[in-house]
Amino acid sequence: MDDLQRARACADRMYANDKASKALGIDIEIPEAGTAVASMRVREDMTNGFDICHGGLIFTLADTAFAFACNAYDDVTVAGSGMIEFLRPVFLDDELRAVALEEHRGQRSGLYAVEVVNQDGEFVALFRGRSIARGQPLLDD
Amino acid sequence: MDDLQRARACADRMYANDKASKALGIDIEIPEAGTAVASMRVREDMTNGFDICHGGLIFTLADTAFAFACNAYDDVTVAGSGMIEFLRPVFLDDELRAVALEEHRGQRSGLYAVEVVNQDGEFVALFRGRSIARGQPLLDD
Amino acid sequence: MDDLQRARACADRMYANDKASKALGIDIEIPEAGTAVASMRVREDMTNGFDICHGGLIFTLADTAFAFACNAYDDVTVAGSGMIEFLRPVFLDDELRAVALEEHRGQRSGLYAVEVVNQDGEFVALFRGRSIARGQPLLDD
Amino acid sequence: MDDLQRARACADRMYANDKASKALGIDIEIPEAGTAVASMRVREDMTNGFDICHGGLIFTLADTAFAFACNAYDDVTVAGSGMIEFLRPVFLDDELRAVALEEHRGQRSGLYAVEVVNQDGEFVALFRGRSIARGQPLLDD
Repeated sequence: MDDLQRARACADRMYANDKASKALGIDIEIPEAGTAVASMRVREDMTNGFDICHGGLIFTLADTAFAFACNAYDDVTVAGSGMIEFLRPVFLDDELRAVALEEHRGQRSGLYAVEVVNQDGEFVALFRGRSIARGQPLLDD
Repeated sequence: MDDLQRARACADRMYANDKASKALGIDIEIPEAGTAVASMRVREDMTNGFDICHGGLIFTLADTAFAFACNAYDDVTVAGSGMIEFLRPVFLDDELRAVALEEHRGQRSGLYAVEVVNQDGEFVALFRGRSIARGQPLLDD
Repeated sequence: MDDLQRARACADRMYANDKASKALGIDIEIPEAGTAVASMRVREDMTNGFDICHGGLIFTLADTAFAFACNAYDDVTVAGSGMIEFLRPVFLDDELRAVALEEHRGQRSGLYAVEVVNQDGEFVALFRGRSIARGQPLLDD
Repeated sequence: MDDLQRARACADRMYANDKASKALGIDIEIPEAGTAVASMRVREDMTNGFDICHGGLIFTLADTAFAFACNAYDDVTVAGSGMIEFLRPVFLDDELRAVALEEHRGQRSGLYAVEVVNQDGEFVALFRGRSIARGQPLLDD
């Protein structure tokens, strides 16, 4: 299995059991090991009291891309922290894409940058997450 | 209307239309102006591929508490940024409470700290959000 | 040695060799274990091109308070990350105090909140730092 | 004056009066408008009680690069917040370079990413800063 195959096998294993991402209609692609693209359409049940997308769900999309990017190495990896800057409001039916790239990978911790864009290619949020690898295999066979 | 009444009127107005928070089963209390408590039970559709609560939804709970705390002043206020530190894993059926307090309130921007605890009173996450007031009334009458 | 004595012994050991903090004229007090107060007067060589205190030096003061707070336990501890929100400009001759409190202390990592106030008691910055303990004694005797 | 000339004129004006950056021996280059490179050698008076470079001064270097990058547009611009992840220890006599790039520029606020590398090209820190433009000209003629 090469790096990309392993990254995709990890993603498939995670996604199969990821009820939260599925409930939000999030799709995942793994272009290469250490990256991930998560996409989501903003549904009515994602809008808040100001008729815009709840910022928590924009974070959730970015955090999902981050989680799939940092779990490419067959080592169960969780989020230590995340931070997001909101740049533009997001509206009902917007099609969001979150692209996660690896900024740094140390022995146990990593940093990932995620850019969230809408269907017009406008940046709506920038995210950075710090990951912690647990040292446990993700693929059990 | 005193400060607390106004804060609660703003919260009622926001909550009535907040489809995202309702879809996640989030309840809101306003103990005093500039604070908010958001509570949520972790459902099966909130768990991720590692059988723990998706970090994005913990953020969403904290962000919701923050949104209701910073919208106490009859001035539509949105999130500029948010950051979260995850301290402990959160499991299915955990009962989370996010308590938002005002750290600073300037002319247009504010800072709010949110602590997220589980049913055993353990801290599971610490959040900080920066708010931006738009200068538009929230209560239209 | 009780907790406070140990915390102060650690602070004394660190400060003796802390050329950077001394060069900036930073003083340290340890009110109790897990806290620290760092104070600094803004000198002319701390001002930037806009005649206000360089934000990096406000961060440095907060980071110093954080470092002394998290090194209370006779275990060499370094900063993993830090974030600061600047609330007000700081001017020449201002007397700043940075008060660091422990928000969370896990097995190896900790979170510390630092408030920076000026001589009028106004908040000028809020800082949060994440610490990493190395598992090495700080006091060698 | 084209964009790069204007950016360099702003940098020259700021640097002429930037006592803090000069006191730390920081040099500035402006490769293009919206970017900046700040470099600094770690002196003995920059080391802390663990004989490594004080993290606050690494932040200060990154913050300086950020300040010169965001002040390219003849509009006085200050830092609203900054966050740094420390990746590797920095030692006496290390030659650091902080490269600031513009991630986003809105009407009044901007986001800048800064990478700090040592003389071996290793990343020692990643920084992100949020800027606020005051709407006042920087060049007075």
